[in-house]
Amino acid sequence: MISKRIQEQLKKGSPIREAFEEGQRLAKIYGAENVFDFSIGNPYVEAPKKVKESIQKIIEQNPRQIHSYMNDAGYEDVREKIAESLNRRFGTSFHMHNIIMSVGAAGAMNAAMYALMDVDDEVMVMRPYYPGYTSFILNWQGKKVEVDPDPQTFQPDFEDFESKITERTKLVIVNSPNNPTGAIYTEDTIQRLAQILEKKEQAYGHEIYLLSDEPYRELVYTGETLPYLTKYYNNTLVAYSFSKSLSVPGERIGYLVIPDEASESQMLIKAVKMTTGMIGYVNAPSLFQKVVAECLDEKANLEFYQKNRDILYKKLCNLGFEVVPPSGAFYIFIKAPGGDEKRFLEKAHECNILLVGGSFFGYVGYARISFCVSHEKILRSLTAFEKLAELMRE
Amino acid sequence: MISKRIQEQLKKGSPIREAFEEGQRLAKIYGAENVFDFSIGNPYVEAPKKVKESIQKIIEQNPRQIHSYMNDAGYEDVREKIAESLNRRFGTSFHMHNIIMSVGAAGAMNAAMYALMDVDDEVMVMRPYYPGYTSFILNWQGKKVEVDPDPQTFQPDFEDFESKITERTKLVIVNSPNNPTGAIYTEDTIQRLAQILEKKEQAYGHEIYLLSDEPYRELVYTGETLPYLTKYYNNTLVAYSFSKSLSVPGERIGYLVIPDEASESQMLIKAVKMTTGMIGYVNAPSLFQKVVAECLDEKANLEFYQKNRDILYKKLCNLGFEVVPPSGAFYIFIKAPGGDEKRFLEKAHECNILLVGGSFFGYVGYARISFCVSHEKILRSLTAFEKLAELMRE
Repeated sequence: MISKRIQEQLKKGSPIREAFEEGQRLAKIYGAENVFDFSIGNPYVEAPKKVKESIQKIIEQNPRQIHSYMNDAGYEDVREKIAESLNRRFGTSFHMHNIIMSVGAAGAMNAAMYALMDVDDEVMVMRPYYPGYTSFILNWQGKKVEVDPDPQTFQPDFEDFESKITERTKLVIVNSPNNPTGAIYTEDTIQRLAQILEKKEQAYGHEIYLLSDEPYRELVYTGETLPYLTKYYNNTLVAYSFSKSLSVPGERIGYLVIPDEASESQMLIKAVKMTTGMIGYVNAPSLFQKVVAECLDEKANLEFYQKNRDILYKKLCNLGFEVVPPSGAFYIFIKAPGGDEKRFLEKAHECNILLVGGSFFGYVGYARISFCVSHEKILRSLTAFEKLAELMRE
Repeated sequence: MISKRIQEQLKKGSPIREAFEEGQRLAKIYGAENVFDFSIGNPYVEAPKKVKESIQKIIEQNPRQIHSYMNDAGYEDVREKIAESLNRRFGTSFHMHNIIMSVGAAGAMNAAMYALMDVDDEVMVMRPYYPGYTSFILNWQGKKVEVDPDPQTFQPDFEDFESKITERTKLVIVNSPNNPTGAIYTEDTIQRLAQILEKKEQAYGHEIYLLSDEPYRELVYTGETLPYLTKYYNNTLVAYSFSKSLSVPGERIGYLVIPDEASESQMLIKAVKMTTGMIGYVNAPSLFQKVVAECLDEKANLEFYQKNRDILYKKLCNLGFEVVPPSGAFYIFIKAPGGDEKRFLEKAHECNILLVGGSFFGYVGYARISFCVSHEKILRSLTAFEKLAELMRE
């Protein structure tokens, strides 16, 4: 018999999975070109040519240097190159030992969380948030504490944040650019978070770690370079994934940054190496460690996503929808007119538009639009959104 | 601060890691050729040419078909090919849906264990056993129950096994060919295990799952094809890894088999797909899913290991050591003369031979020799073993 805790999770279902299946069903009836499945956040653009070229080059080496076990934190030359790349781009001063290669950002987060969390430790998440965090917290028997956003800017509500930090707060997860809102945290936000955390660390006499989940770091439409959080708060860990920047989500490759400034950083690095083994990741996939090291200067195909974003955002505004300005990632978070999320999703479904409700992200009354689809699909969807706007006015 | 549970694990240390570091230190003093580090189970032979050729072929496809997210259980064509390969080799009747691609055997085991285990459920392991099992059980808050072996054959002690099954027994882990003994389970052993489990399932009125960890399935020196356990006991799950058979341990690629005969198999398949996501594996690395599907008929380089095994086993017997006949895997389990494991490891160390003590595998008084090293290293080690035999007679 399935365990009770996993049975409970199964009962909740997955709206993204269900939307996918519904999309397949509708496509058979109306034709794939007339169904607008905006539910899945799978990068649409191809991996850059450099990925293929790197693979071709790397496999000319001795197979034992490519496919074998290595140091459990990953190949040293790969970690050195990543440290240098971060230092060049963000003015940090990381070394090889600060970088631990991981099975994507999810692998980095789970390894870090297991290393830090005791049973019933509290982990704060900023509404709305990626639902995977709920699973990660459950995995290591923590307690999830949700922080409200400022509903205008989707920056955190700092008062709410401060009031919910307790003696048991171990970790605070942030995610900018954000899934599902597309919002990015301003430097001011990061400074205020850091101030509050430092004050609370002092008050409680122990560390509160900031865990920054950054798979969308390079997908920013405002021209900004986002602040690197380790420079603002010592006990910051950064989970990065190459899934979005290199369009290789299936390859499960990323890394965790543990800066020297974090307290007991040497011990924490050892602990994360250990949990990486314990959880059964063992190490990040070896060939792709070497591939990403060759591709650190590749740029994400921002133009592609920007075009989709611009067209759709403008249209939705013109149609009178309330939309969070999407500054990054590939999502638009749209308010359900009148606030009734369920009705909004149903009406969208009538227009063959498949969205994921805000409640899936811990924030009811909204829906997420993933615009990582073809330009053609975006253009064809505009009349469907017109129809949706009409239906919502009824 | 590191969590208390991980601090405890860190305190235990890792004898394999320590042996590796000691080996590096000794190599600087005595020269690498005079140090015999038999501690690590990393395949020595190169990946077959077909691995490289498959990569070259596969990357000619559209990158979106290679590096993207796919069905969370893995590519359907890959799973179909694996099912067919198993059916052809073992007379099973699996379909695509019975195969879930995983991040190695460790990923398969953890996904299955999380899906099945509630807090305080009991998981049985057969002494001596791979120490990773202890971590996996800890991850999901189970209780480890150790079963004694028959010390002559290293088959399980069936009386001990039967007496330790309780109301809370959820899982029984077996591993044949075995790490660390190299023993293989006979068909009679499997039949007796199945009989006992069926009886106990009936007595307690719920399932007890048999989880077969099979990274060494093809590394057998006796010419036998090992029985496929799903044919003997319905509630059997099989965790497989390509790490050893294709010499690609760094790539983290394997699969879990959930047969239709397992009770609630459809639900269990769903549950394992869900835990694969929850734990942060998300999916098995995508390119290597396609690679292994091309290499299912490749044979492990058995001859290489057999040669090492034959030379070393014969020598150890001639020197009067008590050794478990190594039928599979790439390990020899050697009894500490006089039974004092610590003294034996120290004397071996004096001969620059680095072994891992049986106590690391839950079975004191022995040591494991990993013979996945070069032939030359094996040959050079023989005089060191002669010296060790002498030292032990003192």
